[in-house]
Amino acid sequence: MSQGLPATAAMLAIGDELLSGRTKDRNIGHLAEVLTMAGIDLKEVRIVGDEPHIIADTLNTLRRQYDYVFTSGGIGPTHDDITADAVAAAFALPIDEHPEAVALLSDHYARREMPFTEARRRMTRTPKGAALIDNPVSVAPGFRIENVFVMAGVPDVFKAMLGKVVEGLPQGRAVQSVAIPCPYGEGDIGDPLRELAKRHEGVVIGSYPKFDGKHYSTEIVLRARDDAALGEAAKDVRRMLAEMDDTKRV
Amino acid sequence: MSQGLPATAAMLAIGDELLSGRTKDRNIGHLAEVLTMAGIDLKEVRIVGDEPHIIADTLNTLRRQYDYVFTSGGIGPTHDDITADAVAAAFALPIDEHPEAVALLSDHYARREMPFTEARRRMTRTPKGAALIDNPVSVAPGFRIENVFVMAGVPDVFKAMLGKVVEGLPQGRAVQSVAIPCPYGEGDIGDPLRELAKRHEGVVIGSYPKFDGKHYSTEIVLRARDDAALGEAAKDVRRMLAEMDDTKRV
Repeated sequence: MSQGLPATAAMLAIGDELLSGRTKDRNIGHLAEVLTMAGIDLKEVRIVGDEPHIIADTLNTLRRQYDYVFTSGGIGPTHDDITADAVAAAFALPIDEHPEAVALLSDHYARREMPFTEARRRMTRTPKGAALIDNPVSVAPGFRIENVFVMAGVPDVFKAMLGKVVEGLPQGRAVQSVAIPCPYGEGDIGDPLRELAKRHEGVVIGSYPKFDGKHYSTEIVLRARDDAALGEAAKDVRRMLAEMDDTKRV
Repeated sequence: MSQGLPATAAMLAIGDELLSGRTKDRNIGHLAEVLTMAGIDLKEVRIVGDEPHIIADTLNTLRRQYDYVFTSGGIGPTHDDITADAVAAAFALPIDEHPEAVALLSDHYARREMPFTEARRRMTRTPKGAALIDNPVSVAPGFRIENVFVMAGVPDVFKAMLGKVVEGLPQGRAVQSVAIPCPYGEGDIGDPLRELAKRHEGVVIGSYPKFDGKHYSTEIVLRARDDAALGEAAKDVRRMLAEMDDTKRV
C-alpha cells in the first residue's frame, strides 16, 4: 500500500445460499464497520456462488487490485466447501493438510471423544505457505495467504476470526464522522446541501432519507479523516439548517 | 438469453454507506428470494461506492455478462445521488428530464403544496430512451434501460419497484428445494454426504451448520429444477440419516 494513503480492501462472500436468498448475509456489514474503525477503506464487495473457477478468478482480480481481501464462507467439512481449493488454484499453489491445524483438530475431537473423520480433516487443508487464523468459537481455523484472509461464513465465527485478523494489521487513521439529524426531506435540503458540499471537497457528505410513514426527514452524515475540515463542514451544515428553520418560521 | 436455460442476473448495490457499515444492506437478500421464485438465477452481486466511473465500469461488465442487472441506490434528490448519471455514462447516452417523470412529480408536489425544487427535479433525470419503473411508495420512479433496472436503495421502495419489474419479466421454471433437518454436525455427515452428492449430479446439495451454543446440527438443502431428480436425492438423504441413526443406536 502507498505510504500515507489508507489501505484498501475488498470482500468476497462465497456461497450459493447467499444468491438464492436462503441465507441473508450478515458478515458484509460487520466487516465494513470493523474496517472503518481500523482506518482501512473497504472499496468493493462481491458475492459469488460455489463455483471453483469463478471464486479463483474473482479472487485474483481483487487481490491484485486491493491491499487486503477478506473472504467468508465455504471452509467447512462438506463437499460444498470448496473455498480452500479455489484459493489454492488462484495462487497456483498445492493444497495440503496444515500440520498445526491437524494438531488442533485431532486434539479437539479426541478430547470430545468424537471421530476425526475424513470430512473433518478437510478443514485442515490450506494452500502451501498459508498461516492459520485462530478460531476461538469452533476451533477449525481460517487462513491467510499473502494479502488474502480466508474466513468462515457462520457469522459468530467470521466475527471472531476477523477480530483476530484486524488486531494484527497496521491500523490507519480512522475516518471520523458526524451525523446531524435534519427535520427536512431530501428534496428540501438537496439544493443548499449541494452548494455546501462544493465548498467542502475534502469531506464526504451523505444524506440518508427517513420516512416514518407520514413525513420524510433526513440524516446528514459528514465523513473525513481531517478533524478540522470535518468540524468546519459540520458547522456549515448546522448553519444551513438554522437558516432553513428561520425561513420556515416566516 | 438462451432458449431453455434459465435467465441469469446480477445485482449492483451502490452507496458509500454500505461500504462504511453505516447502512446494512437489506435489498440483496430480498432480490435473491424474488428472483429464485421467478426462476431467474442470481449469479453475482457487487457493492461499490459513490464513484461515477466505478459504477459505470462495473455496470458495463455486468450488463454484458448477464441477462438482467438490477441496481439499488443513488437515485434520490441530493448531490450524492449519482446513479442515473453513471448509468447514462455507461451506455454513452445523454441524460435529461423524463417528461412522464416530470409530470408525475410536479403533480405530486403540487397536490401537497410542496415546492418542486431543483433537487426534486433531479429525480426525473434518466438516460435517453429509458422506461420508467413505477414507485407506489414515494412516487419518484426508477427506470429501465435495455437489460438494466435502476431502483432505489430505501428497502421499502426497492421492494415495491422490484415487484413491478418482476411482474413484467418472463418467468422461468423456479428451482425447487427440499430442506431436511439433520441432528448430526457437518463433520459427521460430510463423508457420506459427499458420496451421495456424486450420485445426484443434477441436484445441488448444500449443508448449513447450526450451533445452539452446545451442539452442532445441520440443515441439508437440496435444490433442482427437476422434481423427480429432487425426490430421488431427498429419499437418498433420508435413507442416509436413517442408517446413521441405526449406527448410533448400536
